[in-house]
Parts: sequence; C-alpha cells; structure tokens
Amino acid sequence: MRALVLERQRELSLRDIELPITPAAGEVKIKVHTVGICGSDVHYYTHGRIGPFVVDAPMVLGHEASGTVVEVGPGVGGLKVGDRVCMEPGIPDPNSRASKLGIYNVDPSVTFWATPPIHGCLTPYVVHPASFTYKLPDTVSFAEAAMVEPFAVGLQAASKARIAPGDLAVVIGAGPIGIMVALAALAGGCSRVIISDLQPQKLAVAGRYPGVATVDITRERLADVVARESDGWGADVVFEASGSPKAYQDIFALPRPGGRLVVVGMPVEPVDFDVVSAAAKEIRIETVFRYANVYDRAIAMIASSKVDLKPLISETFRFDESIAAFERAAEGRPGDVKLQIAMTEPA
Amino acid sequence: MRALVLERQRELSLRDIELPITPAAGEVKIKVHTVGICGSDVHYYTHGRIGPFVVDAPMVLGHEASGTVVEVGPGVGGLKVGDRVCMEPGIPDPNSRASKLGIYNVDPSVTFWATPPIHGCLTPYVVHPASFTYKLPDTVSFAEAAMVEPFAVGLQAASKARIAPGDLAVVIGAGPIGIMVALAALAGGCSRVIISDLQPQKLAVAGRYPGVATVDITRERLADVVARESDGWGADVVFEASGSPKAYQDIFALPRPGGRLVVVGMPVEPVDFDVVSAAAKEIRIETVFRYANVYDRAIAMIASSKVDLKPLISETFRFDESIAAFERAAEGRPGDVKLQIAMTEPA
Amino acid sequence: MRALVLERQRELSLRDIELPITPAAGEVKIKVHTVGICGSDVHYYTHGRIGPFVVDAPMVLGHEASGTVVEVGPGVGGLKVGDRVCMEPGIPDPNSRASKLGIYNVDPSVTFWATPPIHGCLTPYVVHPASFTYKLPDTVSFAEAAMVEPFAVGLQAASKARIAPGDLAVVIGAGPIGIMVALAALAGGCSRVIISDLQPQKLAVAGRYPGVATVDITRERLADVVARESDGWGADVVFEASGSPKAYQDIFALPRPGGRLVVVGMPVEPVDFDVVSAAAKEIRIETVFRYANVYDRAIAMIASSKVDLKPLISETFRFDESIAAFERAAEGRPGDVKLQIAMTEPA
Amino acid sequence: MRALVLERQRELSLRDIELPITPAAGEVKIKVHTVGICGSDVHYYTHGRIGPFVVDAPMVLGHEASGTVVEVGPGVGGLKVGDRVCMEPGIPDPNSRASKLGIYNVDPSVTFWATPPIHGCLTPYVVHPASFTYKLPDTVSFAEAAMVEPFAVGLQAASKARIAPGDLAVVIGAGPIGIMVALAALAGGCSRVIISDLQPQKLAVAGRYPGVATVDITRERLADVVARESDGWGADVVFEASGSPKAYQDIFALPRPGGRLVVVGMPVEPVDFDVVSAAAKEIRIETVFRYANVYDRAIAMIASSKVDLKPLISETFRFDESIAAFERAAEGRPGDVKLQIAMTEPA
Repeated sequence: MRALVLERQRELSLRDIELPITPAAGEVKIKVHTVGICGSDVHYYTHGRIGPFVVDAPMVLGHEASGTVVEVGPGVGGLKVGDRVCMEPGIPDPNSRASKLGIYNVDPSVTFWATPPIHGCLTPYVVHPASFTYKLPDTVSFAEAAMVEPFAVGLQAASKARIAPGDLAVVIGAGPIGIMVALAALAGGCSRVIISDLQPQKLAVAGRYPGVATVDITRERLADVVARESDGWGADVVFEASGSPKAYQDIFALPRPGGRLVVVGMPVEPVDFDVVSAAAKEIRIETVFRYANVYDRAIAMIASSKVDLKPLISETFRFDESIAAFERAAEGRPGDVKLQIAMTEPA
Repeated sequence: MRALVLERQRELSLRDIELPITPAAGEVKIKVHTVGICGSDVHYYTHGRIGPFVVDAPMVLGHEASGTVVEVGPGVGGLKVGDRVCMEPGIPDPNSRASKLGIYNVDPSVTFWATPPIHGCLTPYVVHPASFTYKLPDTVSFAEAAMVEPFAVGLQAASKARIAPGDLAVVIGAGPIGIMVALAALAGGCSRVIISDLQPQKLAVAGRYPGVATVDITRERLADVVARESDGWGADVVFEASGSPKAYQDIFALPRPGGRLVVVGMPVEPVDFDVVSAAAKEIRIETVFRYANVYDRAIAMIASSKVDLKPLISETFRFDESIAAFERAAEGRPGDVKLQIAMTEPA
Repeated sequence: MRALVLERQRELSLRDIELPITPAAGEVKIKVHTVGICGSDVHYYTHGRIGPFVVDAPMVLGHEASGTVVEVGPGVGGLKVGDRVCMEPGIPDPNSRASKLGIYNVDPSVTFWATPPIHGCLTPYVVHPASFTYKLPDTVSFAEAAMVEPFAVGLQAASKARIAPGDLAVVIGAGPIGIMVALAALAGGCSRVIISDLQPQKLAVAGRYPGVATVDITRERLADVVARESDGWGADVVFEASGSPKAYQDIFALPRPGGRLVVVGMPVEPVDFDVVSAAAKEIRIETVFRYANVYDRAIAMIASSKVDLKPLISETFRFDESIAAFERAAEGRPGDVKLQIAMTEPA
Repeated sequence: MRALVLERQRELSLRDIELPITPAAGEVKIKVHTVGICGSDVHYYTHGRIGPFVVDAPMVLGHEASGTVVEVGPGVGGLKVGDRVCMEPGIPDPNSRASKLGIYNVDPSVTFWATPPIHGCLTPYVVHPASFTYKLPDTVSFAEAAMVEPFAVGLQAASKARIAPGDLAVVIGAGPIGIMVALAALAGGCSRVIISDLQPQKLAVAGRYPGVATVDITRERLADVVARESDGWGADVVFEASGSPKAYQDIFALPRPGGRLVVVGMPVEPVDFDVVSAAAKEIRIETVFRYANVYDRAIAMIASSKVDLKPLISETFRFDESIAAFERAAEGRPGDVKLQIAMTEPA
C-alpha cells in the first residue's frame, strides 16, 4: 500500500510498502480520511529519533487520524461498514496489569502509531482494533476528528488536574499542545485561563478564544499577572506545556496554597525542582503520558460545541503533497497550529 | 430598622425591627442592594416551618443578597467601604471540627439567614462577617450577585459529582435548583445535560441554554432518552433535583456502570433505595447540603461569562412591594424562575 | 470430569460432567486444591436462584478457589507449571468500555463462576485466564488462598471507603462478609472498628481481633455506642454488611458530618433512604459489586500478616464429603464462618 | 516564667522570660509535661536559622508537647481542668481562605511554636487555643503524646499518598521522620514498607517493626530490591524522607506505572527532576507541609495500638538538663531517634 514513509532522518518518500490489509478478530479496516501532522512526526523526520525511540528502519508516519470503516473483522459488535470514525493510536495489552487498572496508557507493552518500530497511518487504509476506534456523530467533521488525538492530550491534562468548577488555570506555553490544554481546561470547568508565551503570534491564536487571557513573557512577569488576577492568592492549577527548563524557575510562585502543577511539556534534560517552594504550598504535581479513556469525551465535547478546534487547522494538504506538508511543518512557522493531510476526496 | 418580617405562618409585614447595626471585629456593614426570593423563604411564609425549623417568633426573611460595604469593623483586611459584594448566608464556628476540615457547611453550629431563629437580610442594612462577604468584579451586576446563592447550590452539586471533562449529565427536575445544577454541570465540565420535568414551561426555560436537551416525562421515558443518547451506556452523572419520591423509581437505570447519583432535591419522607440496582453498577451517591468554598468560584464563573444567570430573573420588585413579591412567589407560576427585590435605587 | 453439580434447587450430586480441559491462548489449567463455600453457593442450593440468576440447567458450584498450575496455554507470560495460585472468578471482556476504565467488575458482559449459566470450580481441574490467576507467595497456604475471594469483597468495600489513616469505622453485621469488611477496614488504615450484630456467637468471632469492638444490638443502641466512642462526632465510615432493611432506620445517625456509608449487604427489596438525614451531614454513599484490582492486594496483606484469616476457617471437608459440607452450610450455624472443601491431598 | 531560651546561634540558657499566662477567650492554659526535641529545634540551635526563618531575638524552643489543662478561658467547650492533652503547634487564622478550605497548614498567616519570632513550649506552662489542643485517652502516656507531633508528619504524608489498602510502599531515609512515615504508611493501609538508608543503626531501629524491610544502600541498589519484591512492577507509593538530592537520581525507577511519589524530606537546594521518566509512568507527586486535621487520627492510632512509638524514645531528660539534652541531640548519634524532656514529675 502507498504510504508516507520516513526512510531515515531527513528522508521521506511516498511509496508502496507492505502493511496489514485484513482485519482479524476484533479489528476493523478503515479508509483513512484526514491525518494531522504532529510535532513528534516532524521530530522523527528532522532528528530520526525521540529519546530512546530510534528510526532504524523505514517507518510510516502519522498518528492523528479519522476515516470510514470499510470492513469489519469477526466478533466486532459496535461498529459497521460506513461508520465515520477516529482512531486512538496507542494499543495496550488489554490483559496487562496497567490495563486492568484502567491506566492502559502506561502499560509498558503499549504500541503506538509512528513510534518506532510501529508504522503510522499516513496511508489510504489502516487495520485497527475496534475497541480503539470511535464512532463520530454527524456533526463532527473528519478534519475535527483528526484533531481528537492532540486534543486528547489536553483533556488528559485537564482530567489529571481534577478541576473544580470555576478554577483559575495558568498554561505555560501557547504552542499546539498549550492551546489544546487551555481549551480542555476551559471546557473542563475552569472559569478562566491565563496562557503565556514569548511568541506574539501564538498568543494571538490562543487569545481569540473567550476566557483566555494572554501574557507575553518578554513584556510582563507571569507571576505578577497571576498575582494581580487572583488577588495575590495564586492559580488553582498550573499547566506546564512549554517543555522549557526555564519555566521551572519560580514556577511555584504561580499556584495557590494547595494548588496543582500539571506537567505536559517534556524537557529533554532534568529540570530544577525546588522542593521547599513546592512543599511550602503543599503543591500536588501531576504528570501526563498521552491519554487513556478520553477519546469518547473529546468527541462529545467537540460534538456539543464545548470546544471549537476548527480555527486551529492552519492548512490542509493533499496526500500527494505530504512531503511538502512535512517541510512546511519543519519550518515551524509561529502562526501554524495544525497542518493536516486529507487522504481522500471530500466525503 | 425596616425589614420584611414573617410574623407567623401566612402573615408578613414590612415594619421596623431591632437588628445589629454596628460591625464588630471581623465584620462589615453592608447596604443591601438586591435580595432574591428563595423557595425556602416562601415555604416559611406558607407553612411556618421547614422540617425541624419552626417560625415561633417574628423573623426577617431573605438570604440571597448583594450590596455595598458601608462600614468596616476592626481587623478587617480584604474589604473596604464602597466595595460591591455578595454575602454567604451560613456562618459556621470557624474553630469547629467540621470547619477545620473545610466542610463548614455541615458544622452543626452553623447559623443561616432566615432559618429560625436567625434573621435574614430583607432589610436595608446588614452586618456580616467579612470572611463570608465576597467582593464583586465590576462586570457582575447586583442582580446577578444576588443569584450567587442559588447558583452556589448547583455548584456544590457539580463539585460533589467530581465531573470528568466531557461527562454526560442528567438533571431530574427543571425548577430553579434543577436549572442551577444544569448550568453548573455544563460550566463545570460536562459536554451535555439532559434535563427532565413534567412542566413544559420549565423545560422551555432550561432548553434555551446551549448544551441542554429537555425531556418531557409526560411524553417520553427519561431512561429511554438517556439510553439512546449514550448508546446504551448511561449517563456519567445523574443529579436528582426534583425532590420527588417518584424520581427514585428506576433511577439507577440512568447512570452508567461506575456512574454517580448526586442528590440535591429534598423529599420530605424517606424514598425507596434499590440497593441491588445501585450496587450492580457500583454507583456512588453524593448528597448536598447548601455549599462550602464555592462563592468565589460562582462569582468567577459569572464574571467570565461561563454561566449567564440573567435570563433566570423573571421579575424585580421594589422593597415596598415585598409582600406582593412573596404573594407572587407563593403562586408558583411555572414560568417564574427567580423573583428579586431591589432594595435601593439603581447604583 | 467429576464435579459437585447443582442439578436443580435442593439437589446436589457429585458426578462426571463435561468441562473444558485444555487451556487456550492466555489460559492456564489449574489443579484445584481448596474451595470455600460461599453464601451464594448455598443460596443457589436452597433457593435455586439469586434475583434474576436462575439455575435452569445443572451447574457446577464453587467460586472461592486455590490450586496449582499444571498446564500453560500459548502466550502466557507470568505463570508456569507448578505455581501455586488463586483464581479471580469473574471474567470480563477485556476490551469492554468498563474494562478500559479499570472497573471490569461492572462490565455488563462479565461471567462469574457458579453464577448461572457458568460452571464453578468444585472439580479437580479448571481452565482459567492467566490474567485472572494470581501467584501465591510461599507463606500463603492453599486454605488462606481460598479465602482471598471473600476477603476481596471486604477489600473492595475498604477501597471504596477511601479510608483516611486513623478513621473510625462501624460495620453493621458480623456475618462472614461483615468480618471480612472489618478486617479489611482495620488493615486498610482504620484505627478501630465497631461491629454490631444480634448474634453473640458471631460477635465473639469478630471480637477476638484486636481493634474490633462489638455491639450486641439486642442490648445496646449502636448509635449510642458510636456517639460515646466518638465524643458525639460520629464514625468516619459506616459499612452496611447485614443486608437487613432494618439497618437503614436511623443509619445516618452513625456517620460524622462529611462521613461515608459503604453499602455491602444486599437487601432483596428496596430500603428506606432518608435523604434529608443523609444530606444534613452531606454523607457520601458508596456501593460495592464484587471487586476489581484487589486480588494482588489481598494476597499481599495475607502474606505480610496484616490480616489473619485462618481463625475464620471453621471446618474443612474432603471433596467426597462435598454434599455433607453444603448441608452443614445450609444449616447456618452462627459459629460457622467459613467451611472449605480440600480437593486434593495436602501438598 | 522559666524557659529554655535560644539566645542566639549556639547559645542556650534556662532562664526566666516573659510569656502569656492567662488564657483568653477560646484558649486554655496547660501545665507542660513532656517535650520532644525535634531536628528543627536542634538546627536553630546549631545554625541560628532555617531558610528564611532567622533567630534574631531570644526564642523559647520546643514544639512537640503534652501536658495537663490547668485553666480554661471563656467560651471553651470541649476541654476542662485536669484533661490530659497534647498540642498542635501551628495556629492559623481560622477565617483565612486556606483555613476555610480545610488546608490550614498552608495558611500564609500561620504561626508555629519555636519558629521565629514565635516562642516554643519548653517552659512549665503554655497558653494555647483550645481548638488546637487535643484530649488524650487514658491509654496514651504523656511521652507518647509528645510523639504525636512528629508522627503527624508521617500521617500527613500517608494521607497525601491516598494509600489503597495493600499498597507496597518505599521510604527513602530511616531518620526519625522516615520511620514515622514508614509506621504511618503501614498503619495507614500498606501491606509492606521497604525502607532504605546508609546507616545500619537507623535501619536496625526501623527493621524491628513487623512489615518493614530494610535496604542498606551501601550494599544493594534500592531499585533492584523494589523490582525484585514487586515482580518488576514497582512500588505503589514512594516516600522521599531523606532530603538528599542524591535520592532523586533514578527515583522514578521505584514507583509502578501510575504510582506516586510523596516528598517529605526538604533538600536545601533544588533537585533534579527527570520529567520524562516521571511522565512515562504518569507519576503523581505530592508534597507535604507539616500537617492538618491529623492530630485526632494520630492519637486514635496510638490509643488503639496500631502504632507503637514507645521504642523510638531513646532517652528522657529532666527540664533542668535541657541544655545537655540539646547538646546530645546536636551530636546526631545514629542510634538516637527521639530525645525527650520531662518537664514535671511523673503524673
């Protein structure tokens, strides 16, 4: 089957490659419609690796996908041919200890699209477990459905925060994930979100959403803004979504006593953790690894218009333009939030 | 001071009565602006009692209030003359065991405006602890601020539910409290709310809000609607806000396995609790008594436009029309959600 | 294979019956060593049904079992021939919505040993999924391991209670499940347990454990004892383990403000639920359906001597005495806590 | 009144000093019986400061105390002359935002015995708020009651961990606080605790308790032991109680996927926080600042023999030997867990 293959670092080709084509028991075959390009796809392209995951054999990219069921394997109950769907890209062992606990995202045996050596979904058809394939309401477009994956990260962060209705949130970093977190936090119960970045173009995108206030940290101290906006009390929850080690300097000045820090960004090196400052406010720190049990919630929130992800789709490419799409993504234009590839003609 | 006094069951008078006028240490004096009429005020008027609380001496009514600070007692830090505020009507012993735990609403020694023998706030000036008096942002009107009290009940219910972002909620009963619960659940993270009643006029009010679907139970079975809307899985959380014993028949058909029931309505008599049906889904049941630690959150949600309570103010009366306002409230017109009394000229 | 078969209500036979003998992928074959007799086994024997579950075909009884792995199916990683094990009798669909959430016990498609039409384990060999088969430390005997199942119910109740270290607990009912709950609550962090019953013999068994105080409710009011032992504050958590509707009269006099009621006993008919009394203290009510994710914890607690279940084994029968064992169990002697059947010679 | 006064760094005197002697409203006067010496007392003595808290005026030391009520101020309900008590040394503003939330320990306005400029309790009589003075059961000795304060730190850590019954815990550091944490974790529901240190004498003290396994990290890698003891899965909860920056190297190898790290030790400088390793297992990190709402629980656990703190009292000095006691404490003998000063003759 034709696919966008990362041959090795910095070398992409659109070519035929052997992939599964028949759904086994519990699986479905899906005609892929839209695939979003994620920062991790781009990072494999530009660096050939992410931490311990090294591209040492050709690998199909892509893991943010929507499509239509075209074949149903034996024993599949909830899906039928013709269903419009989106797909959760990480597949655990359903009988593992982590899966039994409901935290299948941290199952050590999980496999994940486009994480070496697992092929991704930038190809016209994929075979996938039915239990990780989610039916779409008519009101959710394929383009929005391909945004469910990155939004799921935001929703996992919001879930981990255990937001109390009306919480004041701070999000550090207005990149694609920071914006997803901000929208998930707002839709998930926060009264307001203060988001910070040093790129005005990114802040401009985030600031268009009602309830989101922006802070350009080249011009203002974030801690000062938070203190002012909270009468000196602090934020109920702080989401670190920049991945920058600098964010950890004085980060515990932001939350209120008894507040929370949710770590979403992934700094390459260990960062400074000021235990005394965290403990003085008895801060709870949550970490986030992908997501579990949020896909259905993400779809419900998009369907009910609690979140509007459409303004975040910066540009859509055809499948035969995939390489150009990746080159554009690799440029890292600050105004680009999400680039997508439409695999098929409009349905 | 002049006040709306419930002399005894069915007898109201607008007359002078002795009330505190000087703030002690930690207290403020407030010029009252707006007071909402609550179902409990009306019930004292029509029945002379609520359960164990009996009106056996003249009592000033009213506990949903906003106003302006006009005097500040010794040792008050966070408020000053001229601040626009709303007031939490229940005052616990701050040193009690319950208060130390942060659940001051269930402190057995709590006193509450217009709950015998404590006078309420339908009078031009009240003296109140500063720590239960909350400053209003400029964007929150006095009329909205007098809605904070009933909304706080909805917010307490939503907080107890521990909503996960994207939850599907059911609210049984579209009276004033049911609507407050529905709005709090939506703003607090639910993707959608299904609200049921047998009065079309009440459903019409609730159904005007985006995200709220209505079910007229004289025409459809609520359990059927929930099953249809959730693919047979059930609702994540069910709020019982009708207080009707009938609501408990088959109530555990509504939540999903592992779901929650939050009991807000107060049936006079014990209701039927089908333990086996609840246990088969391992339902968690939460009960709600007024609220604690939600006033600031309620104000933040109103200020940020996450909830719009203005459409729920059905009519506003002048202070000298207070008795007429109570007579209207006692009629129980299905289209009336909240009647308010404006104590002062528009500020 | 030979098995104890419930032919129909009140008719048991020890006879050959067709049962699976070869482990499929992910399964193991186990030589059964010890099987405990549960109240539900006895109830099927005496009544032929439990609620909607009707014995309308011959069914092998027994679901509390330990044994030794004798054969391992394909793809089994964590177990090998010779491992001493105990088995969790409820098997969910690992790909169901409930299982993905970690609450596989409430998966509507779960099957459970000796719940019609599923055969139980009172037979020399059983085939079982490896992921629901738990390896035993050397320090845990087969007899103790066959107690893991009923103790797991207690542990599920204790887990649902979300015990804070030092909680005061009340357990209503000193039958086998009440005692399991009391031991789990104590080992799970409670400082003390007050257990009540009207049978002195049952209380005598419970009262032998340090930390357990007993209340004979034919002689004292439980609410009075709780008030006295808690300085009038109430218990942090109340476990209802009697299944008696009478327990619900005044049950909310027992917990403290903000306390919890965990419902373990299963009354046949709906019981009276006094919403106002529950709400006045904002009680949280948890229900329990079997258990999930506690088998490994139960084994760890037995192995580390945090709980001693051995004194609860009242008598052990040989497999060929199984029918006599059930007749004894059906007598319901108040001094009997657990009767067991040893399938094999001592290992 | 006579008191042990820290005049300045390294200079103690036992001399008269002006202290309150009359209980105001809500206060009691207590004849002090036993006072434990805490590491922080010693640190003020040897260094003259702890972080931002500088001894720049003479200060009475001591904050771990028990005694007898000798006078009761106006409005005190729950205590009377002759009651044996212990005292919680941190006093918040009961009307503060943090106190209303139940997290009074992180109230920025809290005052704490023997934290500059607040005098401690190494003096024959103290005046204290009744709501922070706890009545002792007859079965708890004054010596044990003076251990409630350090045990409360352990209990706060155990509470923050939200232990599920049967959890496997690791405690890093077997100093006085590490041992308190280990005992609280065990009594609070853990099945087993693995405690590590590099001082064999400290491990010997900890290892005497059933359920506590010790690891001498000069001889074994802690991560290896944890992997072995948990079948490679990891610990449910890890308590860092050493305060050593080295403990953070590879600390996330210890917890299981979805596990928790509770930070109790206070390293002076920021430590390395390996976000990627924490996130890969979605670890939750809790921090601890003193304690709130655990004194009554600590007393209940001591009274019911769930924890036995008596073996931790290494030596008891008379009040007139106080300076010698501090000199001994400053030596830091590895076999010393707790030194106490008995202020009065045995009662």
